[in-house]
Amino acid sequence: MPASFPEKYLDLFQKKSFGALTTLMPDGSPQTTPVWVDYKNGDLWVNSALGRQKDKNVRRDPRVCVAIIDADNPYRYVEVRGKVKEITQSGADEHINAMAKKYLGQDVYPFRQPGEQRVLYKIAISKALPVG
Amino acid sequence: MPASFPEKYLDLFQKKSFGALTTLMPDGSPQTTPVWVDYKNGDLWVNSALGRQKDKNVRRDPRVCVAIIDADNPYRYVEVRGKVKEITQSGADEHINAMAKKYLGQDVYPFRQPGEQRVLYKIAISKALPVG
Repeated sequence: MPASFPEKYLDLFQKKSFGALTTLMPDGSPQTTPVWVDYKNGDLWVNSALGRQKDKNVRRDPRVCVAIIDADNPYRYVEVRGKVKEITQSGADEHINAMAKKYLGQDVYPFRQPGEQRVLYKIAISKALPVG
Repeated sequence: MPASFPEKYLDLFQKKSFGALTTLMPDGSPQTTPVWVDYKNGDLWVNSALGRQKDKNVRRDPRVCVAIIDADNPYRYVEVRGKVKEITQSGADEHINAMAKKYLGQDVYPFRQPGEQRVLYKIAISKALPVG
């Protein structure tokens, strides 16, 4: 059963709040990195690039956890557990630019490497545990 | 082989930098929460309480990941992968008070619940990947 993100904490997505995204390595051990986060149609969206460790990981095992921490208060956060239900390049470039606008105030994502292909993970939320 | 924390990033521990600690649930899925972090004798130290989800998890599977994010710059962080090599209550009360001093400026940890027993995880670092 999908769960929804708690309404009282939706303000986290209005701020420059980071998520700590965890994926699983081939041996099952965890890999955690900070990411930009977005919330669309009840799913959590994370934008990455083809071939990165997290990209390889979610294609093998879609189970992830994202701790989304209030940009204004690190003691207020939501732990989201879920599964990557869709991996797509469609719309990923537009989306990373929208994220650059939100997090950096820039119209175009400035960190793109030569040849980098953006990819979008749509994460179905199975549990969302608010704290603080 | 144990790895060491990169010297150039040791300033993270001088600041109020949070770690995103990931442990593994019984089914192998990840669980990620923000924690205070400390660095002692080449190990990463995290303080928690007996019986919490992360406490149960590390006793079953010691593999963890901690993304330690610069309190002054979320684009600068170190991803630490490792194993909990020691779980102890010895010194855990003194340690949580030291952490309260660092993170909150208070001599005594103010969030203790009735009956709460603090516990210290000493994490051997197997990989430390600096970014930014």
